[in-house]
Amino acid sequence: MHPAPVDRLIVELGKLPGIGRRTAQRLAFHILRSDDEDAFALAAAIREVKEQVGLCETCFNLAEGPQCVICADPRRSQEVICVVEEPQDVIPIERTGEFRGLYHVLGGALSPIDGIDPDDLKIEELVARVGRGGVSEIVLATNPTTTGEATAHHIADRLRGQVTLTRLASGLPVGADLEHADEVTLGRALAGRRSV
Amino acid sequence: MHPAPVDRLIVELGKLPGIGRRTAQRLAFHILRSDDEDAFALAAAIREVKEQVGLCETCFNLAEGPQCVICADPRRSQEVICVVEEPQDVIPIERTGEFRGLYHVLGGALSPIDGIDPDDLKIEELVARVGRGGVSEIVLATNPTTTGEATAHHIADRLRGQVTLTRLASGLPVGADLEHADEVTLGRALAGRRSV
Repeated sequence: MHPAPVDRLIVELGKLPGIGRRTAQRLAFHILRSDDEDAFALAAAIREVKEQVGLCETCFNLAEGPQCVICADPRRSQEVICVVEEPQDVIPIERTGEFRGLYHVLGGALSPIDGIDPDDLKIEELVARVGRGGVSEIVLATNPTTTGEATAHHIADRLRGQVTLTRLASGLPVGADLEHADEVTLGRALAGRRSV
Repeated sequence: MHPAPVDRLIVELGKLPGIGRRTAQRLAFHILRSDDEDAFALAAAIREVKEQVGLCETCFNLAEGPQCVICADPRRSQEVICVVEEPQDVIPIERTGEFRGLYHVLGGALSPIDGIDPDDLKIEELVARVGRGGVSEIVLATNPTTTGEATAHHIADRLRGQVTLTRLASGLPVGADLEHADEVTLGRALAGRRSV
């Protein structure tokens, strides 16, 4: 019924998370009506994010080159590594201004039920980083959820005795997402991190 | 904090209607994680819809060439024209399978408060189509809203005496509960009651 390019756009938009067919249709018609310039800017932004953004070869945070801006910053302390699940978890921690170390992005959390095993996360790479020396503390900042806790425990078991292991203080509501935490709560949680 | 291409994508996604910054961020990270193929297909679909889809030069429905598929179909009756506000209004009418005539897409509805005057809609083009002859009936299928009604009345005033003018029946939706019908709809259903 729609011209084929409209149907294709509705299908592609509908593949995005939380975008049902109705919403996809509404967005497609918005794009049809909008200025060419805006639509082409969106298309270009999608291409560019895939072409230009990869993972930091040290910490697996998002990076435009081989290293992310944090690993490339000589002012950051090399002694403390904050371990998070996803690249988007780095942002709220940086926003607190309370952390001056480096990160390690696991790429998820252990979840046997979803088939996510230690091999699927950047855990060996973390163990290797610690093995190269110079790291005194690992802050386990996985989410305060079942899978996040399990991941923190697993990593603590792997690294115990080699470095100080800390976990963000609870102060974060259990079941919450790190990504959506406000900076005051998260800052306090960081300041109050404790040994595990 | 994010690599620049990620921020640009979040900004562009956030320009879409109903997509706030949170949702834009979630979608951007989804696109980052997704296969290149899916992301490039979405980017291409956005470009192609703008490059390949325009408006039918006869009825102003969406079209891949100078004419839409409906105007180009010789089996459609040339005698009846159904007037709708937007291209997406054509779809539900086609889906009924009850209409075999042509369409005329106005591109909106009269709304002086939003600065939408008759000149902003394809009303002169409709009058010209009728003027070329061969049209016996105009079905005014603008929305049953204040602006849609005003638009229907305006067009009726322009074409009265030249063709038969009809309006979609207002009444209770099939399957609806009398108990939950709003009084305006129920009032119209009563006023439009017919013999059984």
